[in-house]
Amino acid sequence: MKRFTPLVFAAMCAGVMAQVPPPQPPRVISPEVHADRTVTFRFRDPNAKEVMLSREGGQRVAMQKDDQGVWSVTTDTLEPDMYGYSFVADGVGLMDPVNPLIKPNLLNPQSMVHVPGAGLTWEVTDVPHGRVHHHFYHSGVVGDDRDFYVYTPPGYDPAAKQTYPVLYLLHGFSDDASGWTAVGRANIILDNLIAQHKAQPMLIVMTLGYGAPEIVRPAAGPRSPDLGRRNMEKYRDALFDEVIPQVEREYHVIKDRQSRAIAGLSMGGAETLFTGLNALDRFAWIGAFSAGGGGADYDKTYPGLDSSANSKLRLLWIACGADDRLIEPNRKFIAWLKSKEIQVTPIETPGAHTWMVWRRNLSEFAPLLFRKKTS
Amino acid sequence: MKRFTPLVFAAMCAGVMAQVPPPQPPRVISPEVHADRTVTFRFRDPNAKEVMLSREGGQRVAMQKDDQGVWSVTTDTLEPDMYGYSFVADGVGLMDPVNPLIKPNLLNPQSMVHVPGAGLTWEVTDVPHGRVHHHFYHSGVVGDDRDFYVYTPPGYDPAAKQTYPVLYLLHGFSDDASGWTAVGRANIILDNLIAQHKAQPMLIVMTLGYGAPEIVRPAAGPRSPDLGRRNMEKYRDALFDEVIPQVEREYHVIKDRQSRAIAGLSMGGAETLFTGLNALDRFAWIGAFSAGGGGADYDKTYPGLDSSANSKLRLLWIACGADDRLIEPNRKFIAWLKSKEIQVTPIETPGAHTWMVWRRNLSEFAPLLFRKKTS
Repeated sequence: MKRFTPLVFAAMCAGVMAQVPPPQPPRVISPEVHADRTVTFRFRDPNAKEVMLSREGGQRVAMQKDDQGVWSVTTDTLEPDMYGYSFVADGVGLMDPVNPLIKPNLLNPQSMVHVPGAGLTWEVTDVPHGRVHHHFYHSGVVGDDRDFYVYTPPGYDPAAKQTYPVLYLLHGFSDDASGWTAVGRANIILDNLIAQHKAQPMLIVMTLGYGAPEIVRPAAGPRSPDLGRRNMEKYRDALFDEVIPQVEREYHVIKDRQSRAIAGLSMGGAETLFTGLNALDRFAWIGAFSAGGGGADYDKTYPGLDSSANSKLRLLWIACGADDRLIEPNRKFIAWLKSKEIQVTPIETPGAHTWMVWRRNLSEFAPLLFRKKTS
Repeated sequence: MKRFTPLVFAAMCAGVMAQVPPPQPPRVISPEVHADRTVTFRFRDPNAKEVMLSREGGQRVAMQKDDQGVWSVTTDTLEPDMYGYSFVADGVGLMDPVNPLIKPNLLNPQSMVHVPGAGLTWEVTDVPHGRVHHHFYHSGVVGDDRDFYVYTPPGYDPAAKQTYPVLYLLHGFSDDASGWTAVGRANIILDNLIAQHKAQPMLIVMTLGYGAPEIVRPAAGPRSPDLGRRNMEKYRDALFDEVIPQVEREYHVIKDRQSRAIAGLSMGGAETLFTGLNALDRFAWIGAFSAGGGGADYDKTYPGLDSSANSKLRLLWIACGADDRLIEPNRKFIAWLKSKEIQVTPIETPGAHTWMVWRRNLSEFAPLLFRKKTS
């Protein structure tokens, strides 16, 4: 059992003393990533009856308690990746209190563990890095104060005249606007793909995906039946009327449909399909990751969509993990698209409804974007 | 007891279904901020023997368990502010699992609660907002991959020629580079002060404050006795050799000492004093918040510092909360400065070693910066 007693760092910091905290039990180390890519998780909870490890993409596993009240479990060898996890103590999911790496989420914040690997797109490598710009604004469309993030690629120079294409990238239900950077590592993925000449240098705009923010807030009573639809429509309106105009004013971007892509995961994938397929005058590149199709009544959700879209769509890329519960709706939607003779790139990957799938989706999708027509 | 059962949001999201989670007990609502500015905290932990609320700036208070295993407590009326807190369950500090607002920290991440008020500098108001730019780079000085943040004020236009002064703003021990924005709300404070014409438009650069990052990592054995000193020196070297040159290359800033300020809290205050008072050729404005003086042996830490500094220093602003354990070292340091006939603005405020003090410090300090000489 590895632990350490925190030093009084104060004395070391050349006279900077923190307030002396109340006595604490010895600090537990968690997570501990071993060289063989097994991971030991530890959690002190002396009186819990049962503590489980809940790991993204894994089955819940029971942890064992030692005589100090510390529960622990060591995983099998894991694929190099970032994994969300929580400890489920007597039925309650908890963040790891000694792990600073948080997976932000509006309903279910968790902890994250990084199992490092080599040559993976989401690993920080010694290549030029882009920047992530955090914007704050009042949305007149939605009626709240909100934020969005803009990734600019390495070499982007606000003083120069070079212009770039833009990918609008949407998070999933219960994520916040930081999801695609803090968890999805979109900026690192693009840094690496650009350095390897696998993707065009591009901007990525990561918005807050709630047109009706009450959808992600606790509610005492039943929800309005049109909440889901309103959430998508107001999301689209804020994107079209507020975010895209601001981005195109403030950044050096190419303002035509051939240089504008939209993609998203889960709820953001549904918003992507609803927004993008109904606005092919704005977007030539569309990607949906684990979206499940975006609406049960396709004819109603995509009125007028037919094979004439093929002349406008440079890419309609629809991916889902084979172990995702949305795989069947996803297949159904693809079948509908094909019945309409709309050209689609259907992708089935290993994995479930997890960020491990979505980081790989972005890593595959981004290289396909903004290529010159070869015909 | 307010709770809600989460709806299956899936069905509402126009067909977007999340993976069905394992059965959960009814969701607890926490924190609940009431109109009278009392706050109810709730935490489900059926088998804990004792759960305490630990709130920034407050005494620990016992929570009471109901027959559902939910512990709760309602505070007295609180001053409008942002408060860090955790639940201490059988001696273990835990983040609130249902609160998405996290107080990032490398050793002790907590939750935060916002008790809103009016006219406070850290409240988002309907004024123009600046932006926060997140930079990533490999530090040759320290030997790691690290980040820093740059706030640009409203109206900052990379394409225009207007130049701005810069405040270098340092976090405390165990914070990460996001501390001054995520917790200190420096960007919101400056947005408001600038809109009210109380502060000059300026950039704020918020760096990672560890020159020796092992200082904030678990260690099995004793630390090198020079770790604190090395942490400060390498911090300064990275600031001078890497961060400042990059900022001055990439942003429209005024490159003279009259337009360069440095300030920090706690460990960052000590680094500020060490860095700034030994480099008056670079900084004319210096602020230390709850720093305690930065080094026990002042003559050794600030060799050669004497009253000739007064002709260079436009401001040496040294603040500490009266309930901070560092108030005595702080007074001792101010007495030493006075014995050297160095002009100093000593500030004692209410409060302890908390972000409530530091947000107010920044709100008072920033308006003093970069004023024209009136003599």
